[in-house]
Amino acid sequence: MAHLLSTSCSIKLSSSHRPLSQPFHQCPTKCLTFFTLGTSKSPFKRFVLQGGTQQTSCVVRATMAPISQETPTQSSSDSRQNSSEPSKPKRVMVIGGDGYCGWATALHLSNKGYEVAIADSLIRRLFDQQLGLDSLTPIASIHNRLRCWRSVTGKTIELYIGDICDFEFLSETFKSFEPDAVVHFGEQRSAPYSMIDRNRAVFTQHNNVIGTLNVLFAIKEFREQCHLVKLGTMGEYGTPNIDIEEGYITITHNGRTDTLPFPKQASSFYHLSKVHDSNNIAFTCKAWGIRATDLNQGVVYGVRTDETEMHEELCNRLDYDGVFGTALNRFCVQAAVGHPLTVYGKGGQTRGYLDIRDTVQCVELAIANPAQPGEFRVFNQFTEQFSVNELASLVTKAGEKLGLDVKTISVPNPRVEAEEHYYNAKHTKLIELGLKPHLLSDSLLDSLLNFAIKFKDRVDTKQIMPSVSWKKIGVKPKTLAA
Amino acid sequence: MAHLLSTSCSIKLSSSHRPLSQPFHQCPTKCLTFFTLGTSKSPFKRFVLQGGTQQTSCVVRATMAPISQETPTQSSSDSRQNSSEPSKPKRVMVIGGDGYCGWATALHLSNKGYEVAIADSLIRRLFDQQLGLDSLTPIASIHNRLRCWRSVTGKTIELYIGDICDFEFLSETFKSFEPDAVVHFGEQRSAPYSMIDRNRAVFTQHNNVIGTLNVLFAIKEFREQCHLVKLGTMGEYGTPNIDIEEGYITITHNGRTDTLPFPKQASSFYHLSKVHDSNNIAFTCKAWGIRATDLNQGVVYGVRTDETEMHEELCNRLDYDGVFGTALNRFCVQAAVGHPLTVYGKGGQTRGYLDIRDTVQCVELAIANPAQPGEFRVFNQFTEQFSVNELASLVTKAGEKLGLDVKTISVPNPRVEAEEHYYNAKHTKLIELGLKPHLLSDSLLDSLLNFAIKFKDRVDTKQIMPSVSWKKIGVKPKTLAA
Repeated sequence: MAHLLSTSCSIKLSSSHRPLSQPFHQCPTKCLTFFTLGTSKSPFKRFVLQGGTQQTSCVVRATMAPISQETPTQSSSDSRQNSSEPSKPKRVMVIGGDGYCGWATALHLSNKGYEVAIADSLIRRLFDQQLGLDSLTPIASIHNRLRCWRSVTGKTIELYIGDICDFEFLSETFKSFEPDAVVHFGEQRSAPYSMIDRNRAVFTQHNNVIGTLNVLFAIKEFREQCHLVKLGTMGEYGTPNIDIEEGYITITHNGRTDTLPFPKQASSFYHLSKVHDSNNIAFTCKAWGIRATDLNQGVVYGVRTDETEMHEELCNRLDYDGVFGTALNRFCVQAAVGHPLTVYGKGGQTRGYLDIRDTVQCVELAIANPAQPGEFRVFNQFTEQFSVNELASLVTKAGEKLGLDVKTISVPNPRVEAEEHYYNAKHTKLIELGLKPHLLSDSLLDSLLNFAIKFKDRVDTKQIMPSVSWKKIGVKPKTLAA
Repeated sequence: MAHLLSTSCSIKLSSSHRPLSQPFHQCPTKCLTFFTLGTSKSPFKRFVLQGGTQQTSCVVRATMAPISQETPTQSSSDSRQNSSEPSKPKRVMVIGGDGYCGWATALHLSNKGYEVAIADSLIRRLFDQQLGLDSLTPIASIHNRLRCWRSVTGKTIELYIGDICDFEFLSETFKSFEPDAVVHFGEQRSAPYSMIDRNRAVFTQHNNVIGTLNVLFAIKEFREQCHLVKLGTMGEYGTPNIDIEEGYITITHNGRTDTLPFPKQASSFYHLSKVHDSNNIAFTCKAWGIRATDLNQGVVYGVRTDETEMHEELCNRLDYDGVFGTALNRFCVQAAVGHPLTVYGKGGQTRGYLDIRDTVQCVELAIANPAQPGEFRVFNQFTEQFSVNELASLVTKAGEKLGLDVKTISVPNPRVEAEEHYYNAKHTKLIELGLKPHLLSDSLLDSLLNFAIKFKDRVDTKQIMPSVSWKKIGVKPKTLAA
């Protein structure tokens, strides 16, 4: 499977900029972006991409030797590694930093004064191409995104393009950037994608599990004090008939008591891959003294953050399709274009949700308050619980305020899941660290709805309906009709 | 990683017979063995290997077309698939049937009247070559093993040589053999092997997880009524401070109650791969209606079964080395050659153990009493608990009866594990199905010890000491000194 990612990298490198519905403004100042290309076939090379003022062409030069960085303020990380009391991490590598949560997080951390690098294979963009999908919002190439960020803020985000399943790439990235913390979003993150066919199920588990194993080995080998902040999912827990705790549960059984990992009941090959990751990470914390925080995130909604609002070329992606779209974002897009809200089955499915502005806040809190060496810390990262029916009702009411006539329909549930169930998940640890939640009030909904309305001409209604069935997944590669 | 397995198959096919310390008797009757070779590079091909009376040379012919089988008694499996009440399974595929537990199981099931096929990549033999290890007992090539079995009993075991990570191979195997049950031993099964270096950690998780995913997809696609009997390990549970139940635990928490998967705390990349497998299988039982039994097996000891005793060419392997050897087998070999018994650390590590004659009995019980469609059934498969110190004491006493002067030494524990802990694991479900345990009495120990003494001239004492450290595993491929 690694070859798939490696191949995609070189492809995307030369074709990441595609026509947009509305042209971006050119960044007004000279932009300079560092990035690094690694594939399993062509070992590590380093490039410098230079775009001059008011021009889109780039000068690319390759060298095997390190190049001086424009941000020489880095203190000696070795001295930090050796100190008994680790200082606040300064250098953060965001794996998967070109994706939905990753992009918003990378900008947020850069804005907050961290030295940030993005490592990404860009394969998420390839998935869209292969499946005929597209973000509601027009998104710039990663190179243009980073040039723009530098021009707007004066801050540089380094870029390493490659596949973390390629350990040679990951090693060089670690040795070059020397991260104090790694935020790991670099996984195939769609449950429906993992249920399309056998190939994609196997790809999802291989890519996610082996990529994470490589990150753990890289930390052990090159940066043993580095704090791993790993994105998990609330979906790992499933829907047990008891309260969901944050990672662990104290059980008294036959007169004896122990605190053990909370039992997991994942319900897609994607969610399972996250459970596998959690188990692997927990083991390395114990065996090697890795310090790790597992952020079991709820369903993220919204598109704007303080940083992505600074320039339209910094705009985040917004997925509304049946594969990568999630319930609330998809409902808002459906409402904007007059498509009925598609509730899967009975709609009693209840999950935790959070605004993407809280995602970036939570990650920063985790980084600023790192786990101890050997600690496997688990936070449930969401702010509110809703059932699908409650979301549909909220979108309907908000739509009415905007003059939209919002209908709801029930469609056969493509998933295998309980449609009515008890759900009460704890989520206090991030609050205790200082999280100030953005709650899903009508105003927030209006803001998301307005965003959907702004881009409604870009909506492809063919993408909206569920196209992947949990029960019908087969062994033959599935192609989607044009 | 799949390429490693594929490569090994073609290599082993032509070099599986190596010199033995004592020559085997040739099988006295005409032998005919079917086997099938599949690699990712050369798609499915079918071979017939014919060995004439009193001759060792083989005729190999390849064809893409099915060949008639010598056991035409197979009833219509399709009619069985369609009946609402499944009959007792008749056709059993043993994946990993050339290995320690797999070989004994394949023979036992064949002897009990099942139609048996072995699917195996033979990579376990390659591991020995690569690491410079060897079975205490001389083992014949799989081809000669099966020829001998046929000559001794008149029963044919079909052979499919290939890698189950190669789905094309696995598909053809399923379509050709049409199993009613699959016994899945086809995994890298050594914790120390998985902790040698990054490559082998990644290989173990990829090989085990993807192989099992492929088996699940093959069942769904080609044999949806087929019962999966999957070998897990008691090591999945770790050493919690509460009683270990069989797969599930009923938890009352904050006034509510649910029965959930028993929390897992695996302590090597190998054990973790088994946890991943269990989670994946449980999901497919729920989502697809797969019927599965997870046999969480304890540490297996012994070498003889009723079937392997029938002829020396049927002899099972016995591993005593630091990578593949397990505590009791290794202790007996150490006692036989006058090497001190090597207790890791304090020796309070307690685990479940079972005689290999009970392994084959348990697997047969699981097959004869299949799980229901959609059921994920978990049995803890062991008969007695011992600490390492207790084992050393038992071997010492048994050795004294045989006139051996047995010493015990403590060596630094290469693993990360509790050396003194509570341990009480339930194991009643297989007893309820009819298991008649062989207990580790002095006589059994004598038998195993006598076996070790018989082959003590084959012992390579350099293999005995632990060579793999849980904490020192690195990213560079590790080579073992000659």
